[in-house]
Amino acid sequence: MPALDLLIRGGTALTLTDDRPRIQPAVIGIRDGLITLLEEGSATESRSDLSAAETLHAAGTIILPGLVNTHTHLPMTLFRGLADDLPLMDWLNHHIFPAEARHIHPDTVYAGSLLALAEMILSGTTTFCDGYFYEERVAQAALDAGMRGIVAEGFLDPPPPQAPDTPAQVRRAERFLARWQSISPLVTPALFLHSPYTCSPASLTAVKDVARHHGALCCIHVAETREEAAIIRKRYGTTPVRHLHRLGVLDDKTLAVHVNWVDEEEMTILRDCGAAVSHCPESSMKLAAGIAPVPALLARGIPVGLGTDGCASNNDLDLFGEMDTAAKLHKIQLDDPTVMDAQTVLGMATRGGARCLGLDDRIGTLSLGSAADLIIVELKNKPHLTPLYNPWSQLVYAASGADVATVIINGRIVLRDRRLVTIDLSAVIADVERIADRIRSS
Amino acid sequence: MPALDLLIRGGTALTLTDDRPRIQPAVIGIRDGLITLLEEGSATESRSDLSAAETLHAAGTIILPGLVNTHTHLPMTLFRGLADDLPLMDWLNHHIFPAEARHIHPDTVYAGSLLALAEMILSGTTTFCDGYFYEERVAQAALDAGMRGIVAEGFLDPPPPQAPDTPAQVRRAERFLARWQSISPLVTPALFLHSPYTCSPASLTAVKDVARHHGALCCIHVAETREEAAIIRKRYGTTPVRHLHRLGVLDDKTLAVHVNWVDEEEMTILRDCGAAVSHCPESSMKLAAGIAPVPALLARGIPVGLGTDGCASNNDLDLFGEMDTAAKLHKIQLDDPTVMDAQTVLGMATRGGARCLGLDDRIGTLSLGSAADLIIVELKNKPHLTPLYNPWSQLVYAASGADVATVIINGRIVLRDRRLVTIDLSAVIADVERIADRIRSS
Repeated sequence: MPALDLLIRGGTALTLTDDRPRIQPAVIGIRDGLITLLEEGSATESRSDLSAAETLHAAGTIILPGLVNTHTHLPMTLFRGLADDLPLMDWLNHHIFPAEARHIHPDTVYAGSLLALAEMILSGTTTFCDGYFYEERVAQAALDAGMRGIVAEGFLDPPPPQAPDTPAQVRRAERFLARWQSISPLVTPALFLHSPYTCSPASLTAVKDVARHHGALCCIHVAETREEAAIIRKRYGTTPVRHLHRLGVLDDKTLAVHVNWVDEEEMTILRDCGAAVSHCPESSMKLAAGIAPVPALLARGIPVGLGTDGCASNNDLDLFGEMDTAAKLHKIQLDDPTVMDAQTVLGMATRGGARCLGLDDRIGTLSLGSAADLIIVELKNKPHLTPLYNPWSQLVYAASGADVATVIINGRIVLRDRRLVTIDLSAVIADVERIADRIRSS
Repeated sequence: MPALDLLIRGGTALTLTDDRPRIQPAVIGIRDGLITLLEEGSATESRSDLSAAETLHAAGTIILPGLVNTHTHLPMTLFRGLADDLPLMDWLNHHIFPAEARHIHPDTVYAGSLLALAEMILSGTTTFCDGYFYEERVAQAALDAGMRGIVAEGFLDPPPPQAPDTPAQVRRAERFLARWQSISPLVTPALFLHSPYTCSPASLTAVKDVARHHGALCCIHVAETREEAAIIRKRYGTTPVRHLHRLGVLDDKTLAVHVNWVDEEEMTILRDCGAAVSHCPESSMKLAAGIAPVPALLARGIPVGLGTDGCASNNDLDLFGEMDTAAKLHKIQLDDPTVMDAQTVLGMATRGGARCLGLDDRIGTLSLGSAADLIIVELKNKPHLTPLYNPWSQLVYAASGADVATVIINGRIVLRDRRLVTIDLSAVIADVERIADRIRSS
């Protein structure tokens, strides 16, 4: 019996660890879903523990941990390009919310999620954190695709004068977490509070209590727009972050999404609570929502990951593009080309994201004993990746998701030479096209 | 003899014209390098003028005018990723200028340009405007690759105390324009003044006079950074645009590049002179140089095109990424998600760019009689381009250069199913790798 399930030989491995950031040429052994060998090639030529069921020859590539997308609404692939370049509230109230009300149900959630998973795998993402409704169908799609994900069931109060049914929310939260808690090492259940302006204080605290009781992550859009800040100010006389803090919602199992409008003291609150931040620069730019003060958050030691947000406001799920934009946006905003250097940004998209999701004991770096979630970026015969002086810079500033050749999640190859292994792409696209036809004609 | 050299059938054609923006399914006929047929498919099934030497079946694609990159320094592909995330003057004075002094000569310019042309063709650019030194080698590369380009020979005074040799500059400018004026319909010679802070008033006026005498375009970096504005203020007591205006350098054959720092009156000056602007958002973000007031320039009727700038400050030549960034950057800067909508941005990257370069009588739209410079974007089996509600939005917000399947320049197929027809990519990459080895070890 071979000692390894999979062996990768050659290429430049960027480990995203501090002690040995680059290994070249790399020898990476995988067994039972874990990285069990991680060495420089030259020293390992004739060892018997290098026998493997399969060997990938990776000369001329960069190997790195799979990217972590800390904020998505996967089923919204169904609305990609349906409404763009509109004022935010017009976009939301007259296009997105009505389309969701009409077309989102368990079957469409599953189809849209599988399309999203295909897109993410094809662009090098191996872990996502999704917040939506009918999230059990997102979970099922992830299991079917062999993708790692945090699936966060969504909570949003009905618009007044309807009252939220808090006991029903609590039951749904309990049921979701209990159902998915131990299904698979790939899928971790969580809860998603839509925002401090769409969830009442009672809902926020009740749902967060359920999450806390189960040790589950709780995600929430916070301080995305100035409009939100004005609403919270009017209703509660304070800012979104302080409002959540007073309610006891912020802790080290809270992922605050966007965080575009925060002052110094609020950053200190986030840090002291141990909360993490998901930064979605492209979505916030496209909606003119705001710019998160990421360098300041990072300077305080707050975990920050990258997210694409949903496809209705981006309009893709490619974290390579997101890295490029994140690096450039903060340079121009802060008038400082040295901030958000390529290594920092790549760190946000990998180990930073893993830390945000509470998965940093398993993923986010290439380390002995960590889960074998890794991607292989092909450099050969690519003019835009030639020459190679600095692999970090090349990945952030020149590569795109289309350069990812191979994706491995939990030791399993899910993309091989850009062919999806676990997803029947033609069938998924046919399903989505049928749904899109209904959306077009509605 | 067939009536057409090339026939394209099917797909959605975005013409970038006002009268008939979308033709679906499209029938496009090409003969002698020109578009000679442009109709909807249903009406043209059995016509004899549809016989063609070659037919491309384009169902499931978007066909659009080839993209126009209005500002590049092609040979700087050689320095891609050599120095990033540095203060601008450190980057320029301690990395880029020394690397250029040591490694830029006619042979390296040719190799770096061919690499750039390969990258541009692979990402859907059919026309470029380049400014560099040994520009005759860029011109030769364009001819060899079958690419359309404006090749602008560069002028830059030596640093003081050396004095510029203005008569020598004039002779070089004259020689360059005379040599390349009538070589090919593809390559148009022009002149490139580096900037108002690196060229003396005498050099600016003398070189511009030569351009004017030949009816040639004159490109110049203007108002890129606040540092430049401060230098011009100190030396001449005014702003960069006013300085150039007083010298008589601005006219309708001037392409002002960057234009990040201009006031209302300077925009009026640019408009009244008929000058055009090249907008390079990614480069200006990465160097923290500034943000051009593009919506205000467009509102004044000033022609604005998109540019990538050189690969040392971007770090790629993909105009799809540039469109996405341009659309999002101005939304967030102006706090208005309705500015720079997808159609406007796609217009900048095509007919806007053509107008900037004085080529709008030939390229920039799909029109009867225009040059057959067009690209075909493949949508089939692409999760990130599914579903398709709005082709403009899909191209700007979701597509990347890697989605371009076919590129036609002047009626000739130069990219076929993502394979370069006119460039020996392996040989080009091998040449560049040899140069990069020398750069690494220097």
